[in-house]
Amino acid sequence: MSEKWIADRMHRIDASGIRKVFDLAATMKRPINLSIGQPHFDTPQPVKDALCQAVQEGKNAYSQTQGIAPLLRVLQSDVDQKYGHSDRRVFVTSGTSGGLMLALCTLLNPGDEVIIFDPWFVMYKHLTTLAGGTVVQVSTYPDFRIRAEAVEAAISDRTKVILFNSPGNPTGAVASAEEVQMLAEIAARHDIALISDEIYRAFCYDEPFRSPAEWNDRTIVIDGFSKSHSMTGLRLGYLHGPQYLIQQMTKLQQFTFVCAPHPVQWAGVTAWEQDLSGYQADYRQKRDLMVSLLKNDFRIVGGQGAFYLFLKTPWGTGTEFVTEAIRNNLLIIPGNVFSPADTHFRLSFAAEDDVLREGAEILCRLARNPPSSLQT
Amino acid sequence: MSEKWIADRMHRIDASGIRKVFDLAATMKRPINLSIGQPHFDTPQPVKDALCQAVQEGKNAYSQTQGIAPLLRVLQSDVDQKYGHSDRRVFVTSGTSGGLMLALCTLLNPGDEVIIFDPWFVMYKHLTTLAGGTVVQVSTYPDFRIRAEAVEAAISDRTKVILFNSPGNPTGAVASAEEVQMLAEIAARHDIALISDEIYRAFCYDEPFRSPAEWNDRTIVIDGFSKSHSMTGLRLGYLHGPQYLIQQMTKLQQFTFVCAPHPVQWAGVTAWEQDLSGYQADYRQKRDLMVSLLKNDFRIVGGQGAFYLFLKTPWGTGTEFVTEAIRNNLLIIPGNVFSPADTHFRLSFAAEDDVLREGAEILCRLARNPPSSLQT
Repeated sequence: MSEKWIADRMHRIDASGIRKVFDLAATMKRPINLSIGQPHFDTPQPVKDALCQAVQEGKNAYSQTQGIAPLLRVLQSDVDQKYGHSDRRVFVTSGTSGGLMLALCTLLNPGDEVIIFDPWFVMYKHLTTLAGGTVVQVSTYPDFRIRAEAVEAAISDRTKVILFNSPGNPTGAVASAEEVQMLAEIAARHDIALISDEIYRAFCYDEPFRSPAEWNDRTIVIDGFSKSHSMTGLRLGYLHGPQYLIQQMTKLQQFTFVCAPHPVQWAGVTAWEQDLSGYQADYRQKRDLMVSLLKNDFRIVGGQGAFYLFLKTPWGTGTEFVTEAIRNNLLIIPGNVFSPADTHFRLSFAAEDDVLREGAEILCRLARNPPSSLQT
Repeated sequence: MSEKWIADRMHRIDASGIRKVFDLAATMKRPINLSIGQPHFDTPQPVKDALCQAVQEGKNAYSQTQGIAPLLRVLQSDVDQKYGHSDRRVFVTSGTSGGLMLALCTLLNPGDEVIIFDPWFVMYKHLTTLAGGTVVQVSTYPDFRIRAEAVEAAISDRTKVILFNSPGNPTGAVASAEEVQMLAEIAARHDIALISDEIYRAFCYDEPFRSPAEWNDRTIVIDGFSKSHSMTGLRLGYLHGPQYLIQQMTKLQQFTFVCAPHPVQWAGVTAWEQDLSGYQADYRQKRDLMVSLLKNDFRIVGGQGAFYLFLKTPWGTGTEFVTEAIRNNLLIIPGNVFSPADTHFRLSFAAEDDVLREGAEILCRLARNPPSSLQT
């Protein structure tokens, strides 16, 4: 009997929500799949070629813990130019989840609190639990906007971190400059660490991206290549923040991730030089397409960035609506995977236009035809 | 002031030992380097080619959390054939450090104890601290053998894990079948989880490799491709153990490592097919060469496997001897990086023969000429 060997923390982590959906999906033949949390385009060819070149040149042994010098150089130069913080240092991580794990394990003592915005990206809760902390949720329903009073009310003497994500997963909401500045200033005033997960930074359709680091020089920024360059399986991210924190995270990386995959770091230098405007325009057009197809049957909130819409169900709970969608061969994710509330569903528009059209058609048909059991 | 933001665990982790040595090394011009903890040969060409093929074929998105099916298939088949345990499952990790982290975080509650054998691989202490546990050290000096009485004496009601490593880093010692069986049975009798770090399994020069899983069907085996196939920077490892534990570790992998680098997993299938006997014979010859060159001036203990010798200094502490070696342009690692004792040094024979000869010559010269301050 090894069940009793399992540590308590593992019983507090229920990562099964999205898995249940994918288990359901496994029974579907050729579903119309609007559930995918990664770009639908292929990794740019020059990035693939650079990766292969590094492999063939033998760059397959450990790299420096903090990342190869040429990649650190381009990233540091960009960060210096953007923010001009004398103490801000860049550090290469194994994806953004790697960066998040290092940041939270470096910051949290058991019992410390992390403020997250509901609905949140699923990893935030589990990584906080892993690091011994607990999350405090601040609701952003119904418009996915952050309100200063709600943040202030959530702060306690155990608040160690505010974990912010714009453009957001699952909402696609992009915080306004005013919201971002407000949050940055609250964190600074209360001496709370502000982690800004900027992995969807490349995808902002209506307003330019704004980082809290513009107003708070101790912001810990999590970033990476996975979403912008369609490299999710290559595990390359980066992080920047105050030097002292970076040193601690480097120490932790030495015996956990060791280093980001070495040849992928060389591909990162090439990735950095790519022009992403074509992908960005493509996703903007897809966002516009989905909004135009859905706006008569769904209230559209969020979706100014990333490649998600998080929509209130026209009837039933998120789970009920998604169950019916799956019965109609459409795969989407119920809102309770990202939230205590089960009132919404997430769709990803990282898919071909014809798939988007088919999906939207099913969604509109479902919206107009609640199942008889739910008709009131 | 962000220093006060740092979690307590980070103050309990001092990972600077080996870094200090490498900082010293950075001042050396073209040192004779016998400090390297990875193979000196290049990654086999078919592995590089398979990796590039996977990249070009677009296998760059997330894989399944537990690893790609073709790699799981070959690994599971091998494990089934070797052990025939009905409940044993394989799981693909991001290197062995990834596997170790998942295993320890899945098993340890705060205050739980992990028995490690002194001298130990540096990561064991830090990963245990990260997971909230504490290490209890069982000395294997002077012959690097494990004694049952010492293990029994170290067991308390907080002992959750015994962490075993054969062939061992830093000693190169390969545990005998009797030692391995004894340890496997002690763990089973006390219902303690036994983690067997078998990353150097491919390199056993005198006796065949024996795993505690032969005698204890709940052994958690950590394994990987880094050392056997010279792929340390590609971050590909695997782990096998009781299904229930593997499920918990898969859950933890979902939001930490996410998956091992996807195209590297495909390269792993090719790596698995490689004939390693040439590399093994090469390192056996290097071990024999070093032993023959050093045996008149050093007492040789351990070194039946891996690519290390861990030798008692002929004079002075490990640090004093290594400082003098570095002054003579030879880079080796003091024993106190791996142990509370500072009586030994580690050399790696993963180097070209002429480098080994030069290094051995310096070591013998140093042994015969203690500095005047240490002459008694």
